[in-house]
Amino acid sequence: MSRNSFGEVFRITTWGESHGKAIGVIIDGCPSGLPLQVEEIDHELELRSPGKTPWTSPRKEPDKVEILSGVFEGMTTGTPISLIIWNRDAQSSAYDSLREVLRPGHANYTYLSKYGVFDFRGGGRASGRETACRVAAGAIAKKILAHYNIKLVAYLSQVGNIAAPKTIINNLSIEQLRKHSRQSAIFCPDVPTEKAICQHIESIMQEGDSLGGIVEAIATNLPVGLGEPVYHKLDAMIANAMMSLPASKGFEIGEGFKAATMRGSAHNDSFIFEKGNIKTKTDHAGGVLGGITTGMPLNIRVAFKPPSSINQTQETVDLQGNKLQLELPAKSRHDPCIAIRAVPVVESMLALVLVDVLLMNRMTRL
Amino acid sequence: MSRNSFGEVFRITTWGESHGKAIGVIIDGCPSGLPLQVEEIDHELELRSPGKTPWTSPRKEPDKVEILSGVFEGMTTGTPISLIIWNRDAQSSAYDSLREVLRPGHANYTYLSKYGVFDFRGGGRASGRETACRVAAGAIAKKILAHYNIKLVAYLSQVGNIAAPKTIINNLSIEQLRKHSRQSAIFCPDVPTEKAICQHIESIMQEGDSLGGIVEAIATNLPVGLGEPVYHKLDAMIANAMMSLPASKGFEIGEGFKAATMRGSAHNDSFIFEKGNIKTKTDHAGGVLGGITTGMPLNIRVAFKPPSSINQTQETVDLQGNKLQLELPAKSRHDPCIAIRAVPVVESMLALVLVDVLLMNRMTRL
Amino acid sequence: MSRNSFGEVFRITTWGESHGKAIGVIIDGCPSGLPLQVEEIDHELELRSPGKTPWTSPRKEPDKVEILSGVFEGMTTGTPISLIIWNRDAQSSAYDSLREVLRPGHANYTYLSKYGVFDFRGGGRASGRETACRVAAGAIAKKILAHYNIKLVAYLSQVGNIAAPKTIINNLSIEQLRKHSRQSAIFCPDVPTEKAICQHIESIMQEGDSLGGIVEAIATNLPVGLGEPVYHKLDAMIANAMMSLPASKGFEIGEGFKAATMRGSAHNDSFIFEKGNIKTKTDHAGGVLGGITTGMPLNIRVAFKPPSSINQTQETVDLQGNKLQLELPAKSRHDPCIAIRAVPVVESMLALVLVDVLLMNRMTRL
Amino acid sequence: MSRNSFGEVFRITTWGESHGKAIGVIIDGCPSGLPLQVEEIDHELELRSPGKTPWTSPRKEPDKVEILSGVFEGMTTGTPISLIIWNRDAQSSAYDSLREVLRPGHANYTYLSKYGVFDFRGGGRASGRETACRVAAGAIAKKILAHYNIKLVAYLSQVGNIAAPKTIINNLSIEQLRKHSRQSAIFCPDVPTEKAICQHIESIMQEGDSLGGIVEAIATNLPVGLGEPVYHKLDAMIANAMMSLPASKGFEIGEGFKAATMRGSAHNDSFIFEKGNIKTKTDHAGGVLGGITTGMPLNIRVAFKPPSSINQTQETVDLQGNKLQLELPAKSRHDPCIAIRAVPVVESMLALVLVDVLLMNRMTRL
Repeated sequence: MSRNSFGEVFRITTWGESHGKAIGVIIDGCPSGLPLQVEEIDHELELRSPGKTPWTSPRKEPDKVEILSGVFEGMTTGTPISLIIWNRDAQSSAYDSLREVLRPGHANYTYLSKYGVFDFRGGGRASGRETACRVAAGAIAKKILAHYNIKLVAYLSQVGNIAAPKTIINNLSIEQLRKHSRQSAIFCPDVPTEKAICQHIESIMQEGDSLGGIVEAIATNLPVGLGEPVYHKLDAMIANAMMSLPASKGFEIGEGFKAATMRGSAHNDSFIFEKGNIKTKTDHAGGVLGGITTGMPLNIRVAFKPPSSINQTQETVDLQGNKLQLELPAKSRHDPCIAIRAVPVVESMLALVLVDVLLMNRMTRL
Repeated sequence: MSRNSFGEVFRITTWGESHGKAIGVIIDGCPSGLPLQVEEIDHELELRSPGKTPWTSPRKEPDKVEILSGVFEGMTTGTPISLIIWNRDAQSSAYDSLREVLRPGHANYTYLSKYGVFDFRGGGRASGRETACRVAAGAIAKKILAHYNIKLVAYLSQVGNIAAPKTIINNLSIEQLRKHSRQSAIFCPDVPTEKAICQHIESIMQEGDSLGGIVEAIATNLPVGLGEPVYHKLDAMIANAMMSLPASKGFEIGEGFKAATMRGSAHNDSFIFEKGNIKTKTDHAGGVLGGITTGMPLNIRVAFKPPSSINQTQETVDLQGNKLQLELPAKSRHDPCIAIRAVPVVESMLALVLVDVLLMNRMTRL
Repeated sequence: MSRNSFGEVFRITTWGESHGKAIGVIIDGCPSGLPLQVEEIDHELELRSPGKTPWTSPRKEPDKVEILSGVFEGMTTGTPISLIIWNRDAQSSAYDSLREVLRPGHANYTYLSKYGVFDFRGGGRASGRETACRVAAGAIAKKILAHYNIKLVAYLSQVGNIAAPKTIINNLSIEQLRKHSRQSAIFCPDVPTEKAICQHIESIMQEGDSLGGIVEAIATNLPVGLGEPVYHKLDAMIANAMMSLPASKGFEIGEGFKAATMRGSAHNDSFIFEKGNIKTKTDHAGGVLGGITTGMPLNIRVAFKPPSSINQTQETVDLQGNKLQLELPAKSRHDPCIAIRAVPVVESMLALVLVDVLLMNRMTRL
Repeated sequence: MSRNSFGEVFRITTWGESHGKAIGVIIDGCPSGLPLQVEEIDHELELRSPGKTPWTSPRKEPDKVEILSGVFEGMTTGTPISLIIWNRDAQSSAYDSLREVLRPGHANYTYLSKYGVFDFRGGGRASGRETACRVAAGAIAKKILAHYNIKLVAYLSQVGNIAAPKTIINNLSIEQLRKHSRQSAIFCPDVPTEKAICQHIESIMQEGDSLGGIVEAIATNLPVGLGEPVYHKLDAMIANAMMSLPASKGFEIGEGFKAATMRGSAHNDSFIFEKGNIKTKTDHAGGVLGGITTGMPLNIRVAFKPPSSINQTQETVDLQGNKLQLELPAKSRHDPCIAIRAVPVVESMLALVLVDVLLMNRMTRL
């Protein structure tokens, strides 16, 4: 059983609570011989750091990782890689009064009901902080993908009702998508959309409210054949990964829900032969047939709900059922739109799944 | 590793190809002491049987299951339950000419590329026929859920652009949803919608085309506390289950993608105290917070693409890259809309996940 | 969780009770492209068949396997291989009177206590009959090992106090060991020992008693590097495999318990360089250092207890605690020394572990 | 896959190299509600600490554990427990010259061959130091067993040819065994045997040599029904656990290898009814039938080879095959008999397995 582990052969196990001493991740199954510097992980971690822009939570943590094992003289050894990130800026006292108050949209009710004990400080284990560990592990996965020349990028495509136009996005190469989204404070590859979203967030913040959003990700240059039917199909594993993220509520691959409204004659991707390779003319399938990569670009979308922590008075009860007016302490800090900071996390989870199927595929043939 | 297994503690392993001798499933981890008759499984299997209506594939298989182990004197024993379904109506020769023709939307290209060998007859392992095994195992899972008084139902909510109105669906109790959808030849709980869909399918069939659709499922009376964060959250496991189904392209829980367009103040479900129980006033979350059941109704949606097998000439290539005009043999049989027959499969997969987390939850507390 | 599954990447799942309709095994993770004929499996199954000699149980089952999936046109496809063996010669009525009698040395007490329900006929799931499935799966594993030119053999080395002399065994090549043990009705590679053992068994049978024994196994030509520290070391996995066999009570690798009496200076194997390869002068370690193969011969020993079913009156109680004199029905059939028929099972389990680590090792390096 | 994880539902994952920054363990699946203080773990760790007596390695590490997650206000929360032990007394330079020298009996050859990279300092991942993590996790497992009133103890029963007399050991209660062995600097419950062993070790140390030994363990008050046939039988899981320990070469349960020399009439344990409970008159089986506990005392034995690091000149080669005379640096520190310090490790591994099956057994019945 693997409650806090993810991946079959490139396997991560994360631990730690938001306001505990530290959080961390073990990567078991990283191949030996990969050059690895701590700065490469820190670099990725910085992407999901809060406190960088007005549009994300002001909690400021440097989030420097320490490599405790599995790397020797700058090279992975094949033994478990233990990464630790110390919690430095945890202001636990801000939450003291909320110990047994059931916060709408939060997991404290379900954790308390399930376990009887809950480290409620800052969301404890249910906090988005856990995703820093996924990004740290994802940094290693991305290095492996780069070694095999596989490219991937995640970006913000929509916040509230403001979406980057498909016509613009579809005309960008993966390199452009990566460059533009990394240049954006909110990972949005289209500048006009970015501006509109930022303005929208600012106005919503003044109302003390929050916003949902959509993250898209693309991977190209994938070999044909990745994914393990019928229960570890690539799309099933990615869906698993994405829906394990805090606040995610929906997942699509290829045409996604739109496929439900299409006819077979329109949805089917014709096979063609181009420059010695079999390809498909279109890619409605999103890069996967029967749960196995076709070699065409993989593309997915993940929907995130608006953050539950808002600066508005909310009606609720405590664990004993007493009615309450919940007002979060002025000191408490939260994101107005978690989809923004989810971008590097989605990218990391995708990388983790891809490395996993890449290694699993080595066992396919005699 | 568990390529062909699903579930952590209530674990199924399926095997078999569409046109092989038989297909089957092992259920390992079924608690002892459950009364079980073969007819109860056959009854569920019948729901997904083809050939019953003009709107599904005319392949006719009685799909009678045989219980080979794990049941003694009508009672489960705690040892593996082996179920087998013999393939009787497989017309393999119909596909002989298609051995190396890459069929648009089909998995024969990816299987051939991955494994080098492919039992292409009738889709082989990639065929939807494998889902009969999921339904057979699901029948046992449903009996366990019923024992604990948990209710669930899946139904067809949309085909193409014809959707059952939310206002109607939301006013039906789970018992009504079950009754109405089981009375419908296409599992659609609303009669006018059902009629419109059937007409639409008929007209599309005359064009030799196919249609996508959406299946919804609901479970009620769930105890609070099911689901294992952070990588086996209930929603992550359900997403995994649903995206492992052939032809599924999207998954939502609660508000799903709509949540991306909502504000926190609107999406947050207020906690209330009612008849001695903690509930939420609304259920935008879909019954899950932090990956753990809240006790509110669980609701999910799964999008299915239109079937790839259509009675139209399609352009494609063979494995060597030679251009071809693909025309399926007149004898070949396929569903105009797989979402219909996916209904009992979605219900079964949901049942399998729920039993799994129900058993896992027994280990939570000292 | 994997109660009835064994192996990480070459994974078997067995099912079936001794006197049920059938027994069987799913092999998930067999690489594609392996030529496989049903006769090859039947051939291995015949080795553990009862009823061939006076020294084993007279139950007569042809034990013909049927391949139900995973093989297409004589070649493995990479999908699950389902093997079934029908139970033909089950004389269940012979055991009817023993339903709740606690048979000394038998598992009916523990199964009844654990599960509340027990298919007691012929030992049910606890019967040695389950090992036929291991041998069937092992036949495929052996073909894979042969493909990589790895050799292995198991043989009977001791029954009661009669043991094949080490000096003789150690002078035989693995080919000779295989040839001589396969020529022996009891898998004993030394003819004088074989004769002494057979005589001993005959005399003990006349007393209605049974005998324990020791099975040894050797594998050669193993590549250096197989085994996954620190919890899936090769020796740990083999020990797991062997101790999961019915009636096994002890496991040794290399010097085994004798190592406890040795000094480091005597036990250490010096490294040498021979014909371009690194080897060790001696092989006290038994082919493994730190849980990883050294390339030297792997050698193990497994101790089996005397069968519990004896033709003598035994004192016992029933499930209600009532005292009883247990006398097995005259019709009941049992082995006087299970170590004999365990020989092909030990060989099969070793093959299964070796294929597993062979495939796992493919993921070690970048 | 679980290279560095052990246990199905009470699952540990260890990480860290002997001379890296730290070592540690994640416990995933510890039930919530267990009171836990760091001192309780430190107390157990002290048992396996080196440097306490002349008969163990003089490496001196306080081995204080830090609890980084999973415990809140002195209580386990059901989330992963992360334990870290910093490496303080690592004298890596002592080994610099040995980087590519193949040390007889050591794992550096196999690690280098498998991974290409090896953190050779102090044995790296292959070092016995990893077992400190098992003891730390075992401390928590023991608390759970104590909660359910299950008792267990491991002790040293033999070093070289000096063994504690069975007649004496068998007459001690589990409480006496625990008391006497904990009072002994070498965990030997019999004082005359203890003295003889200590003298023997001293004389061997003067020759620069090392000694093997045997550790025994007993658990009592176990409920009937623990263990999951047929591949996670309790004895198979314990064997797996013990053979994953560095330097272990053999495993026995009950009569072990002696069972091979016994007759069924002597080995069978008769069932009796005593004070309302079903028991067996004798316990040749060692507390397990069919891989499931009988409720009788569980008893096992593990053989350890003599440590490979000896203060004698040894012949060997380097990785290039060049002949060498290996002399360990005077500064290097090693145990003359690792079986001594293995005692608390064996006890911990047994505790881990028992908690695992205890929790798994909760899922047996409807």
